[in-house]
Amino acid sequence: MRVVGRRSSVDEVIAALSEQLAQGAWAPGERIPTEQDLVAELGVSRAVVREAVRALVQLGCLEARQGAGTFVVSAADPTPMLRQLRLAALRDVFEVQLAYDVQAARLAAQRREDADVARLRELLDRRDRAASPEEFGAADVEFHSAVVDAARNPLLTEMYRYLRERLRESLVALRADSALSEGGPEAHRALFDAISGRDPEAAARAAQAVIEPCLTSLRGVVDERGTAQ
Amino acid sequence: MRVVGRRSSVDEVIAALSEQLAQGAWAPGERIPTEQDLVAELGVSRAVVREAVRALVQLGCLEARQGAGTFVVSAADPTPMLRQLRLAALRDVFEVQLAYDVQAARLAAQRREDADVARLRELLDRRDRAASPEEFGAADVEFHSAVVDAARNPLLTEMYRYLRERLRESLVALRADSALSEGGPEAHRALFDAISGRDPEAAARAAQAVIEPCLTSLRGVVDERGTAQ
Repeated sequence: MRVVGRRSSVDEVIAALSEQLAQGAWAPGERIPTEQDLVAELGVSRAVVREAVRALVQLGCLEARQGAGTFVVSAADPTPMLRQLRLAALRDVFEVQLAYDVQAARLAAQRREDADVARLRELLDRRDRAASPEEFGAADVEFHSAVVDAARNPLLTEMYRYLRERLRESLVALRADSALSEGGPEAHRALFDAISGRDPEAAARAAQAVIEPCLTSLRGVVDERGTAQ
Repeated sequence: MRVVGRRSSVDEVIAALSEQLAQGAWAPGERIPTEQDLVAELGVSRAVVREAVRALVQLGCLEARQGAGTFVVSAADPTPMLRQLRLAALRDVFEVQLAYDVQAARLAAQRREDADVARLRELLDRRDRAASPEEFGAADVEFHSAVVDAARNPLLTEMYRYLRERLRESLVALRADSALSEGGPEAHRALFDAISGRDPEAAARAAQAVIEPCLTSLRGVVDERGTAQ
């Protein structure tokens, strides 16, 4: 694996190292060659190797341990996923978000504590009594986030948060943020009741009923080819 | 926003730019200041600015357009999500994967074409007739991937693929890859029938029934504190 000549860039070294990871040259937990060895092997400058390694650390593939070297965390490459997140059609992002909402509702019904129920009730009331679209929107976002929090899965929480921000940006760009209609107060109440009553199946169905109308109204706002940017 | 003194590193410039993005200094679609301006503003070297910008391109926040400058794609920062993907407990990763499986089944039932059904039938047969655990495992992975493909959502496909690879690594590391039991042939047949019969609700229920036993058997394999690495 020698990166050839002047065209050798950081991207090429990243690609070369990713490929070696994918092929199992080093397993998760193992140490990769030193910077010096990589410089010799790849025929590039130390600065290029360092930048490529740093990029792979940021992508979650490698981990640098002070004084001990650089270790493999995972050979799974998130770049295709990140590329799709950049290019995905709005509909596709929404469908993934819907998957998170349904799973969060199901888990929340299993794991919610009394404090979660109190918080959800308060947010639902605030949502019902909202005096302006802004107040309503804020209470709605908080209600759905509180459901996700009650699921007690930090990975789900972060993935949900990232996707929600991407969706928000897309809708602002389309000037469509107020054009999407969620299920109404009864649907939200049913979701609350199912979580409160510890009924995972009913919670999953209710979450689906709350979010599904967004997908329907989305079809009126944007053609399926529209991207999420 | 001036990155102070010698300690100024690429990471600090990434953090500073991310924060400006989050605060809406530049909206999606807008151009960020030139390299030269950022050098002046941040008080760091051109090499540091260039590396930080390149990292943000890789993370899907910025996009470099030849000759036109660097533009904002999204202010949403995927770093917390990637960090959680690195640190997440195995159970948490599994629960997100389950959300993808259920949503994929639901969408596949809506969008499957005749060719998808033929392919799924073939893979199900191969799975039933498998002569070795390796053959069985390969057919099983292909069957589930074919369900996701039939959902026709490229983002879901990539997120599913990445998570599956992370899970596979974790299970190998735990030497538990054969210890997890999915639902049996009847559960898989029910999933096939629901997709074939275009019944989204039944497909979602069947996918849940197929994967849920993994979570149950996982509890026997690993304590909930175990990480996905």
